[in-house]
Amino acid sequence: MASKVDTEVVIGGKAFTLSGNESEEYLQKVASYINGKMEEYSKMGTFTRQPMDTQNVLIQLNIADDYFKAKKQVELLKEEVEKKEKEIYDLKHELIAMQIKMESREKAMKGIQTEIHSAQKKLTQLEEETEKNKSKEKEKLPE
Amino acid sequence: MASKVDTEVVIGGKAFTLSGNESEEYLQKVASYINGKMEEYSKMGTFTRQPMDTQNVLIQLNIADDYFKAKKQVELLKEEVEKKEKEIYDLKHELIAMQIKMESREKAMKGIQTEIHSAQKKLTQLEEETEKNKSKEKEKLPE
Repeated sequence: MASKVDTEVVIGGKAFTLSGNESEEYLQKVASYINGKMEEYSKMGTFTRQPMDTQNVLIQLNIADDYFKAKKQVELLKEEVEKKEKEIYDLKHELIAMQIKMESREKAMKGIQTEIHSAQKKLTQLEEETEKNKSKEKEKLPE
Repeated sequence: MASKVDTEVVIGGKAFTLSGNESEEYLQKVASYINGKMEEYSKMGTFTRQPMDTQNVLIQLNIADDYFKAKKQVELLKEEVEKKEKEIYDLKHELIAMQIKMESREKAMKGIQTEIHSAQKKLTQLEEETEKNKSKEKEKLPE
């Protein structure tokens, strides 16, 4: 993110000045997340009765647990994305195969249509011819 | 996971007995991750010169930072999965539309083929008729 900035955050009632590349907004979000954990725990007598360093480690463990759970979710989601990519790949191939099939059908169709036209043309010619022959026949009939 | 178990982990050189539903394997993984953070920091003079509670909070902040980064990744991956689902939906619809188009083409094709056959039949009949007429003509020619 931006260049190094000093940000003061208050965690567990104590002020800390953090120097880093993270935005103040982000660091405040992280601080309030940790404060939330501390408040959660401070409601538990079993926690508050522990020595300070134990309390700190327990909070570290709890945050690390959130981290590993999120990390697990990342792994699962990556697998899901991969599966979907495979599905998209297959669908696209199916589509292309179908387009090719369709084009060959269209070609065959055109071929047949030209066949039909020539057949129909020949048909009309022959029909005319036959008509002519019939009338000739009539003329030749003896009175 | 399984039923409540007591697991002893060593964090920052101190032993802690954690009681919970998480597997021992998982808790040891989390513990060694925290120990890794502590080792990282212990190499930095600026860190080791800080009072203990500050050191603890800095490690909490660092772990929370890992958590938020993973959480961000989860959000991005969820968006990606959604996009891919949309793409799959669209591709499936395209495929169905094409199958329908293909079927109608096949139908049209069959129709045309029957047309052709009747046309060809009629053609042969007429050709035969015409041949007959021609031969009659010849017979009638005066010697």
